[in-house]
Amino acid sequence: MQIPAIPPIHDPELAARLDHRIDDKTKPQGSLGVLERLARQIGLIQRSEHPAVAKPAIVVCAGDHGVTAEGISAYPQSVTWQMVENFLAGGAAINVFARQNGCALHIVDAGVNHEFGKRVDLVDCKVAPGTRNFCEQAAMSDEDCARALEAGMRFVDGLDCDVLGFGEMGIGNTTSAAALMSAFTGIAAADCVGAGTGLDAEGIAHKRDVIERALRLHADAKAPLDVLAAFGGFEIAFIVGAMLRGAQRRMVLLVDGFIVTSALLAAAALQSAVLDYCVFSHCSDEAGHRRMLDYLKARPLMQLDLRLGEGTGSALALPLLRAAVNFLERMATFSSASVNGKNG
Amino acid sequence: MQIPAIPPIHDPELAARLDHRIDDKTKPQGSLGVLERLARQIGLIQRSEHPAVAKPAIVVCAGDHGVTAEGISAYPQSVTWQMVENFLAGGAAINVFARQNGCALHIVDAGVNHEFGKRVDLVDCKVAPGTRNFCEQAAMSDEDCARALEAGMRFVDGLDCDVLGFGEMGIGNTTSAAALMSAFTGIAAADCVGAGTGLDAEGIAHKRDVIERALRLHADAKAPLDVLAAFGGFEIAFIVGAMLRGAQRRMVLLVDGFIVTSALLAAAALQSAVLDYCVFSHCSDEAGHRRMLDYLKARPLMQLDLRLGEGTGSALALPLLRAAVNFLERMATFSSASVNGKNG
Repeated sequence: MQIPAIPPIHDPELAARLDHRIDDKTKPQGSLGVLERLARQIGLIQRSEHPAVAKPAIVVCAGDHGVTAEGISAYPQSVTWQMVENFLAGGAAINVFARQNGCALHIVDAGVNHEFGKRVDLVDCKVAPGTRNFCEQAAMSDEDCARALEAGMRFVDGLDCDVLGFGEMGIGNTTSAAALMSAFTGIAAADCVGAGTGLDAEGIAHKRDVIERALRLHADAKAPLDVLAAFGGFEIAFIVGAMLRGAQRRMVLLVDGFIVTSALLAAAALQSAVLDYCVFSHCSDEAGHRRMLDYLKARPLMQLDLRLGEGTGSALALPLLRAAVNFLERMATFSSASVNGKNG
Repeated sequence: MQIPAIPPIHDPELAARLDHRIDDKTKPQGSLGVLERLARQIGLIQRSEHPAVAKPAIVVCAGDHGVTAEGISAYPQSVTWQMVENFLAGGAAINVFARQNGCALHIVDAGVNHEFGKRVDLVDCKVAPGTRNFCEQAAMSDEDCARALEAGMRFVDGLDCDVLGFGEMGIGNTTSAAALMSAFTGIAAADCVGAGTGLDAEGIAHKRDVIERALRLHADAKAPLDVLAAFGGFEIAFIVGAMLRGAQRRMVLLVDGFIVTSALLAAAALQSAVLDYCVFSHCSDEAGHRRMLDYLKARPLMQLDLRLGEGTGSALALPLLRAAVNFLERMATFSSASVNGKNG
């Protein structure tokens, strides 16, 4: 398997031209704050003074997790496939928010423990019906992990979009993400674990014990792909592959919650420049996500106490990306509008 | 002049019905965070289990300020009318963001120091060509302040909207807003004053001196309307009137930046229940705004380092209000989607 080479978006000449365009708009310099930084970043990613958010897409990847055998989730595993059906029927939060904000939505079965049959609207990339219990062995064999990564890359090869957001569904995957977080960042498991979909304090303590046990079992896993195979899910590995290919194809990557950010930790461990392509849409209410973002020196656009996953934070952030490119394209300049500048 | 009586939105029976609808959606309870609180609030304001954001509008009010004679702004006063022309031509940030998010935009001359002539697209509520220098006398006479308030109320009487956002333009009005803030909250002027459109440290120190001088001069002004007349602008008084009438008409009030929030301090001093109708869209980068929001126990939806005014924060927040009512109306329920509940 070939990991895509990703160049940084560094281009001082283009950055200067973008800054000039931004500063010439009829507003005090810098007064559009985060939107100005966003316009600059999207311009650099797209290598254009006229960046666009014309074809956004969100891919929601689903997979099941063997570690649910340890009783680490408040919901039964069957909810994974039931929610996939809900996505396909258009009734989940991500459907509502993607529709509202004019965003294409793709639903991927990367490894759900359910037979969906032939479905035109479900992207079938099932590697296996769920991962193995990572308290007993690596969640994925090296081969299966590679298959999921490659599926993510191939999926993005066939995608026509300029902004690519990620969502996930998988009962047990906050446990997987917390283990990945601890392994990639060195942060203690207790500071990585949270309530997930709704554990109480006792449940969280048990989840922490499970993760600590697994971290000891897989203490030898050091290389990024080994860590990913040890603790990841098929949906997480799929997202890692999709992120890497998306950055290589110079898409803007929209990163929201705890699980998607854990995939980014793996992607960045493989190719650190992938971070240049990331816009962090939302800081989740899941304990640990803030620490993850701090580790990545990431500043999220919003903090709405969401803890749902599905890519909902990214769908909700899309209007801000559009606002960033729209002010750059559509606002008047000081000279065109005959407005006096500072001290003028 | 009659200050509208505003009832609180308290309705435990309706709140319980809204909570039931919210909790029955296919998501862990509470996992849509701020959007759930927003859906509940909008439902209570609209007295409906099926709240809607169908007809949003933003009113941008402009006025000039006599206190600019003290040299407290980085921009010349002429920028006020020039920016009004920019609004009318569609080239300002608020035009771009309102258009993007499907929001009606109304531009009001509440007291600009410029003769615009007859303009079909400009709402002419000019009380006078700018306020007086509040370092020398009250910015407005009691009569003129009442005229501006009444103009705001009358304007909203003629408005057909369910969400009403506020924007402003007025060179010098962060000085006016900081003085109002200090007078209404008791917070020291030094903690109310900021860079406005772009003052340096020396400029900020001078602005603080000007405000402290004015606060001493008008130390006798205690009643809300006296404080407003002493330090306010015509655009600020207009917004106060519009907020009060909007709440009385059970509109959702979208509050963003430093100046609009200073108007809310006055409105809340007159009728504290107006706060029930407010959604705080954005915490501005202007020093003092965070303290203002803390004083009001307000939690803003976003923090994007904007410091532009014009109502830009409110235009940008509109998609979040739509998301709140959309999830409530359009998401599937656990039973309709056959998804297992917690521990189910």
